[in-house]
This record gives sequence, structure tokens and C-alpha cells, in this order.
Amino acid sequence: MKKYVIIVAGGSGTRMGNEIPKQFLLVNNLPVLMHTINCFLEYDLNIKIIMALPESQIVFWNELCNTYNFSKQMQIVKGGKERFESVKNALSVITGDGLVAIHDGVRPLVSVETIKLCFETAQNYGNAVPVFALNESVRKIDNEISYAVNRSEFRIVQTPQVFQIKLIQQAYMQQYCKDFTDDASVLERKGIKINLVEGNRENIKITTPVDLIIAEALLRKK
Amino acid sequence: MKKYVIIVAGGSGTRMGNEIPKQFLLVNNLPVLMHTINCFLEYDLNIKIIMALPESQIVFWNELCNTYNFSKQMQIVKGGKERFESVKNALSVITGDGLVAIHDGVRPLVSVETIKLCFETAQNYGNAVPVFALNESVRKIDNEISYAVNRSEFRIVQTPQVFQIKLIQQAYMQQYCKDFTDDASVLERKGIKINLVEGNRENIKITTPVDLIIAEALLRKK
Repeated sequence: MKKYVIIVAGGSGTRMGNEIPKQFLLVNNLPVLMHTINCFLEYDLNIKIIMALPESQIVFWNELCNTYNFSKQMQIVKGGKERFESVKNALSVITGDGLVAIHDGVRPLVSVETIKLCFETAQNYGNAVPVFALNESVRKIDNEISYAVNRSEFRIVQTPQVFQIKLIQQAYMQQYCKDFTDDASVLERKGIKINLVEGNRENIKITTPVDLIIAEALLRKK
Repeated sequence: MKKYVIIVAGGSGTRMGNEIPKQFLLVNNLPVLMHTINCFLEYDLNIKIIMALPESQIVFWNELCNTYNFSKQMQIVKGGKERFESVKNALSVITGDGLVAIHDGVRPLVSVETIKLCFETAQNYGNAVPVFALNESVRKIDNEISYAVNRSEFRIVQTPQVFQIKLIQQAYMQQYCKDFTDDASVLERKGIKINLVEGNRENIKITTPVDLIIAEALLRKK
């Protein structure tokens, strides 16, 4: 079974209070994106890596690879304006059968166990999405008011989301819709059931300076 | 306006893989609970502190206070089997008017700004609850299936939740119900509108070993 991972590195970093896009920021002396890629190579040295990167950042990325002596084999594709477009571009370069993981570049703390579980489940059931339960109360906003909801009915969704290649390629032929917040929601629109698996809680998405401090601490303990 | 804070320290620590209840674990060389108490004293040195603690842990707490030379004035009340009962016990020792914050003992990272905003809002509107928006996708579980929901409609709820004393005391006269996941849900059952304010994202609830690593990193940067 051929395995691919699409690393989506689209962010412009505007929420970091920082000029450098967040996927390039250093965590424990290595850019976030390199930590992320290393997670997948730790899972499987032969996995094919496809990275979607804004065109304007490709030269900078190549320089970073030189600086950090990071010589992993990978295919770079142009990122789009929306995440949807980036993933679509990346999927279009895959030919043949197999499984593809789609992963946020700014999640450098995914565990090998999570990656493994997602690939195994997708192999058996066509797709797999890692989630975790909430340990805090949740409220739903409804216009001017809000009300408590039963938190046990909700799950936070992470990546990697793993799919049979043909299935997800077909799903991405749809027109873009604002409700597509992740790849599972794109597949789901085609009427296909999504399989949830247990993710690892420390697999955070780095979107704020606080997340960067957290990621540093967790990577040090890894 | 008289101000109180009820610190709810009820956990038995079963989720920590550790014998010591999590509120006593050391973070940067100080038990979690002492960090938490210090947050409120930093906001207002004259705030009255009431701590609900399981009866079996009171001796241990007093020893900890000696060891760490932690001599803050506070009233200890017995915690109950459910959080509801602990809060009810603590509310019962308050006489007269004013505002009361109810705060999880295992949230040592609440900011002074969040505490201040909650008290100010409760003074004007009767209650205030700190929340923050989700930056990850959310799915709802419905029996065997799950589906994507619009994350912008949901908020994660934190503490301190601040109330006019009479209002919350009356609400806690109700019979306990399993749906009461926090103090706002108890008040809400009486038909009272809950006011949401912006919390601080780093105000995490320490429930797992990963949270402890995160708390350490955030407290060091504070």
C-alpha cells in the first residue's frame, strides 16, 4: 500500500504578532515545519511527502533547508488562497492507488501512534480522522444568547486525516464551499461516513504565541 | 462591594497517573493551588478566600502551607462528593451582599485581566463567565455517526465565573442535576441570562500530565 502525506503549510502568520509565517518559526532550534515532517518520517521512512506552500515562500523554505541541512525528499506544490485549493493542488500530483494523510504544517506534535492508527483505520474503512474529547464546559452561541450544551457530544478535530486516494480526490472535485473547515467535511459532503479515532491531545495547532510556548515545552519532553 | 473567591479543589487526581491529587502537584516548585490563590491576591489583596477541599486532604494542605511558608488568610470548607456540593458548602458560609468568583483550583494561569473583567461585568450585569473561541474543527457525535458543526457557534467555558452573591446562593438551592457542569449552568436553570466575556486562552485546567507540562512552561513565561 503506497502512502503519502500532504503537509499543508499555508499560513501567513498574521495571528502571531510576527512577520515570519508561523510554520517557519523556530521551536527548540528547528523550524516548526521540519518538526512536522520528521514526525511522518519517524512513522515511515518511505512515505512520500508533498508540501503545499505559498509560492512566495518557496525560496525562503529552500534557504531554510540549506541552513538546517534538512535534505528530505519531497515534492513542493503551490498553495492556494484557501486551504481547499492547496489540498486540491497537492492531491492532483498523486497518481495511482494508496492512502494519503493530509496534515497541518503547524502541528509538529502529532505522535507516531496517532499517525499509525489513522493509516490503519483508513486502510480498513476508507478514511480516519483523529479527535479528542473536551474536558471543559461548552456553550453554544445563538444570536444574543448562549446556552450550555452537553460536552460529551462534541469532539475537537485534529489532523492527520487519512483517506483512500481515489475517494478524497473525487471529493475534492466539488466546488469549494465555506463550510469545508477540514478534509473530512469535504468527503462528508459526498455522503460518506467519517471514522473517528482517538488522537493525541498534545497534537496542538500553532496559531498564537501561547501555542508556541506550549509546543516548545512539549517538544522538549518528547 | 465585598469580593469573595471560592476555590474548588475537589479532584482526587485519578487522571494524572499519580497518587497525589493534582491540585497539590508542584509546578515551578510551588503546589498548583498556591499559584491559583496567588492569582486572586494579585488582583485584589483584600479578596476573601474560601477553599472547598475534601476533608481527607485538609491536614495535608496545612502541612503544605507550613512547608512552603504560605500563610494567606482563608476559610476552608469541606468539599462534597460532587463539585455542586462543594460549591454549595462554600456559598453557605458567605453572609451579606457582594460578588463571588467561583474558580477551579487547578487553573493556576488565570490572568488578572480576566479576573478583573469578570468582576466588572458581574457588577454591572449580575454574572460573568469567561470563554474563548475554538481554533480547530468540531464534530458532534450522534449515536454511531458524527458530523461537522460550525465551530464559530461554540465557546469553551473557563472559570472564574463571577456572580452576585444572592443570585448564585438562590440558584444553589435547587436540587442537584447531572447537567450542571459549571456554575453558570446552575444559574441558567433559573432562567437567568449568562453574560460571556473574553477569557485568557492560557487559563488551562490541569487534568492530565500533558497539562502539567504546559502549565509549567506558561508559568515560567508569565
